[in-house]
Amino acid sequence: MRFRIGCRLAYQTESPVPFVFNIEAQSFPGQAIESESLVLSPDVPIERWTREDLGNRTFRIIPPTGLVTVDYSAIVEITPSLGDAGAVREIPPGALPLAVLPDLFPSRYCQSDRLQRFAMTTFGDIPPGYARVNAICNWIHDYVTYEGGVSDAMTSAFDIVTMRAGVCRDFAHLGISLCRALGIPARYVSAYAHRLDPPDFHAVFEAFLEGPDGPAWYLFDPTRMADAAGLVRIGVGRDAAEVAFCNAFGAMEAGKPEVWISAMEDAGDATVQAVRAEA
Amino acid sequence: MRFRIGCRLAYQTESPVPFVFNIEAQSFPGQAIESESLVLSPDVPIERWTREDLGNRTFRIIPPTGLVTVDYSAIVEITPSLGDAGAVREIPPGALPLAVLPDLFPSRYCQSDRLQRFAMTTFGDIPPGYARVNAICNWIHDYVTYEGGVSDAMTSAFDIVTMRAGVCRDFAHLGISLCRALGIPARYVSAYAHRLDPPDFHAVFEAFLEGPDGPAWYLFDPTRMADAAGLVRIGVGRDAAEVAFCNAFGAMEAGKPEVWISAMEDAGDATVQAVRAEA
Amino acid sequence: MRFRIGCRLAYQTESPVPFVFNIEAQSFPGQAIESESLVLSPDVPIERWTREDLGNRTFRIIPPTGLVTVDYSAIVEITPSLGDAGAVREIPPGALPLAVLPDLFPSRYCQSDRLQRFAMTTFGDIPPGYARVNAICNWIHDYVTYEGGVSDAMTSAFDIVTMRAGVCRDFAHLGISLCRALGIPARYVSAYAHRLDPPDFHAVFEAFLEGPDGPAWYLFDPTRMADAAGLVRIGVGRDAAEVAFCNAFGAMEAGKPEVWISAMEDAGDATVQAVRAEA
Amino acid sequence: MRFRIGCRLAYQTESPVPFVFNIEAQSFPGQAIESESLVLSPDVPIERWTREDLGNRTFRIIPPTGLVTVDYSAIVEITPSLGDAGAVREIPPGALPLAVLPDLFPSRYCQSDRLQRFAMTTFGDIPPGYARVNAICNWIHDYVTYEGGVSDAMTSAFDIVTMRAGVCRDFAHLGISLCRALGIPARYVSAYAHRLDPPDFHAVFEAFLEGPDGPAWYLFDPTRMADAAGLVRIGVGRDAAEVAFCNAFGAMEAGKPEVWISAMEDAGDATVQAVRAEA
Repeated sequence: MRFRIGCRLAYQTESPVPFVFNIEAQSFPGQAIESESLVLSPDVPIERWTREDLGNRTFRIIPPTGLVTVDYSAIVEITPSLGDAGAVREIPPGALPLAVLPDLFPSRYCQSDRLQRFAMTTFGDIPPGYARVNAICNWIHDYVTYEGGVSDAMTSAFDIVTMRAGVCRDFAHLGISLCRALGIPARYVSAYAHRLDPPDFHAVFEAFLEGPDGPAWYLFDPTRMADAAGLVRIGVGRDAAEVAFCNAFGAMEAGKPEVWISAMEDAGDATVQAVRAEA
Repeated sequence: MRFRIGCRLAYQTESPVPFVFNIEAQSFPGQAIESESLVLSPDVPIERWTREDLGNRTFRIIPPTGLVTVDYSAIVEITPSLGDAGAVREIPPGALPLAVLPDLFPSRYCQSDRLQRFAMTTFGDIPPGYARVNAICNWIHDYVTYEGGVSDAMTSAFDIVTMRAGVCRDFAHLGISLCRALGIPARYVSAYAHRLDPPDFHAVFEAFLEGPDGPAWYLFDPTRMADAAGLVRIGVGRDAAEVAFCNAFGAMEAGKPEVWISAMEDAGDATVQAVRAEA
Repeated sequence: MRFRIGCRLAYQTESPVPFVFNIEAQSFPGQAIESESLVLSPDVPIERWTREDLGNRTFRIIPPTGLVTVDYSAIVEITPSLGDAGAVREIPPGALPLAVLPDLFPSRYCQSDRLQRFAMTTFGDIPPGYARVNAICNWIHDYVTYEGGVSDAMTSAFDIVTMRAGVCRDFAHLGISLCRALGIPARYVSAYAHRLDPPDFHAVFEAFLEGPDGPAWYLFDPTRMADAAGLVRIGVGRDAAEVAFCNAFGAMEAGKPEVWISAMEDAGDATVQAVRAEA
Repeated sequence: MRFRIGCRLAYQTESPVPFVFNIEAQSFPGQAIESESLVLSPDVPIERWTREDLGNRTFRIIPPTGLVTVDYSAIVEITPSLGDAGAVREIPPGALPLAVLPDLFPSRYCQSDRLQRFAMTTFGDIPPGYARVNAICNWIHDYVTYEGGVSDAMTSAFDIVTMRAGVCRDFAHLGISLCRALGIPARYVSAYAHRLDPPDFHAVFEAFLEGPDGPAWYLFDPTRMADAAGLVRIGVGRDAAEVAFCNAFGAMEAGKPEVWISAMEDAGDATVQAVRAEA
């Protein structure tokens, strides 16, 4: 599937503030960038850094005082493997690649250590595998209300279990925490999300599982708000702390970001089972 | 029903430490003290205070350095009203006696304000009344594991929702918090509890509801561990902070408390529905 | 000193919402009400309850749907005892009246148990007495920034120690918590506050200490924003949970409250040392 | 300086439990491993993984049920740059290498976001540079009591600010959080620590600063318990969640670890100013 994606961001500053952005699509075997453009106004120099281990593409600018706009657009082809979910298994800790162990550890917004008992009493009896991670997503979808303005930048998965309301970021944090508590490596993913309404940057998560073709990161969206086969990945990390689309190091006023994604051919309605996306 | 109750407490101090105890049975229309005795060793003077609003009987001693033991025993007759639970209703806030409004407010261990959404999404659709408070107790019984050593003196109802394990004190705190969050006044009760195994001071809670004979405090035990018609009330308060059986103001070593209760006639197996206990 | 005090509150409802107010001045030996008036529009029936133990005067109304306004005004004479702070001592727990022990216990917003070590390491070496409570107020004044919009209805003293910003309510909660952690009974006081700028309902706290004339509650204002000898007490309680000026049990829109207080004679500039206010 | 280091760990299991260890010294320009040995009993296969970005050397074993011991010993030469602290500066966010930005983000135990105000009000007025990070360490040393048994695996920097007691791990977490809150990248370091008494694995932290020879990670030990020029680095990470010396994935009983380090020549008493350790 090919998608046109992009965003337009605008900021007003009263002094030269450094900005670091992570808005460009990742490039990996399952996600190919056909073309892309990045336009800054004013046209300031860009300093780039791509995290080798994760593939996140970041760039920094220090625009002069005043208005700065960032326009990004791209055509991206994603080829998610739509496998048989029933054949996707959890990997016991003794067999996990050592390189993914850090994705089992608790992080700022995903205190899997504090949610251990909750995870075990609620999901401990479900047979391990893709279906168990899906059961976690179902629980979140059923018991947590999607509602803006309830949570904020301080809100963590631990809070969400009792608050029972939040946005995509909170849904992803809870999903990640519950997976880690059950011994399943999990990480945060920011994405352009097809059919998300209203359009915005979206947050989902990935769990590390073993499919028929070997271990891989599988995408999950506990909000059920986007097209599971229409997620174009931007950033990957422990939790939202690592994957902000914009970090500004100083006072600024942000306009509302415009974000878009559209399918370039008919998206169909394939019943997606397990969506795999190798890093 | 008549019960023999009592306890034996022992403490070792290395300086004269003030102790305040709340171990004696309350006296009110539904709970009559036939006889009782309190023996202290050494035989130090006692200073007494009974909270008029709640009926809690407290006494203070300042024993000399060394070993002090406190022996309390009593024969108490309780006449719980065993009514028809189906006829017990919740009272809307506009009709609640103003004197019970404080039992709607959050307290140290019962942060009903932070559990508002959780209470509403989990119990908001259940028809109001005795059955709804009972549904709260069922939820606690089903989803929280009774287990010592998991919670401590800092643990609150907010923590229990995610920890999913605790002791009678934690069960009561969660029950109270959920009631208050739904607009039902609720308070903490310490008690001698028939058939509690092993015997110990027990913690349950009361909700303020309207029965056929008018508004009253109804007892609930989300642990389901004791005989609902065999609870002899000691202290009543916002939460455990107010109803400790012993407060010591200095360093001491406590022995394990011995606590006992036995029915003086055959307790029968009456199917108890709603247990009312007017203060 | 005589003060004219009052407030004007306005609410808009879309259904008959019960309101409970606590805005009228208390009446006790050190605070006499010369005259007062309460005008409701529309003129709905009032149900009153005064808490005997604390003196808080509350009333409930259930106005019809629409706009309701509450106008309260009074002339109050307060005669604070301006004693010699150096002669005011702390009372050891073995000598405290048993009736004030509950004011040592932690409450929703004043988790003195969790602040025990902080209190001991910061204030444990200061000689006990009025001066130590004053040192607590100085610390709060020096290290916590008075700033609106940082804290909210969920914010407790435990949070304020790290957040280091809040409003009068938060300042009072922290003062209360630190006192209780040191063994000094303390409670929350809402008041009309002379020279508070801008005028509003104010929150201060009281500590239970022993002066030359016996034990009494002494007022403290860690914000240092009002005239210490110009506080007209409205409500007293464990913390803000018990002393809201308005509790509404349903959806409503509140206008900004107008609050006023003015001295009826020249207030002078007497150097106030210890302000005592017996309940 | 050359040091003999090592440790002996012992575990008892009742089923084959996977263990992942991170106990071996790192190898980098300032820290050279002359010789080392690792002996396992029973002699089970080892699976190795070294984190490229951080240099942490980890290995996994799955010993058969029963007793397993791990013996590690090495001779390591460290050549810490003992520079002039006065010449070491902070790096503004616009000039920080993009690769260290993640070390500004909050993590599980280092909630720099929640400690922002505390950091600014306490250290905001101190001139930036090595001396400011040192002032943070002095504050921690002065206001936090080193005491075992107070904190546990759940305790974070946010808790420590109010608890005011903890162990090296907690001291490091607080130092890291305060640095990040001030815009200084900081990370957790586990180490063999010369003159630590009693000997144990030690936790310190590194801040990313600019010295006369360019930007580097500088070591800080807020416990002041070890020889600043005698720290042999084992692991580096966001916080303790990433740098455990042992992760066991199943039930086991651990013996008390033996840890040792001794200087192979006279360590001298050079007044160390700034200790730099390039990764």
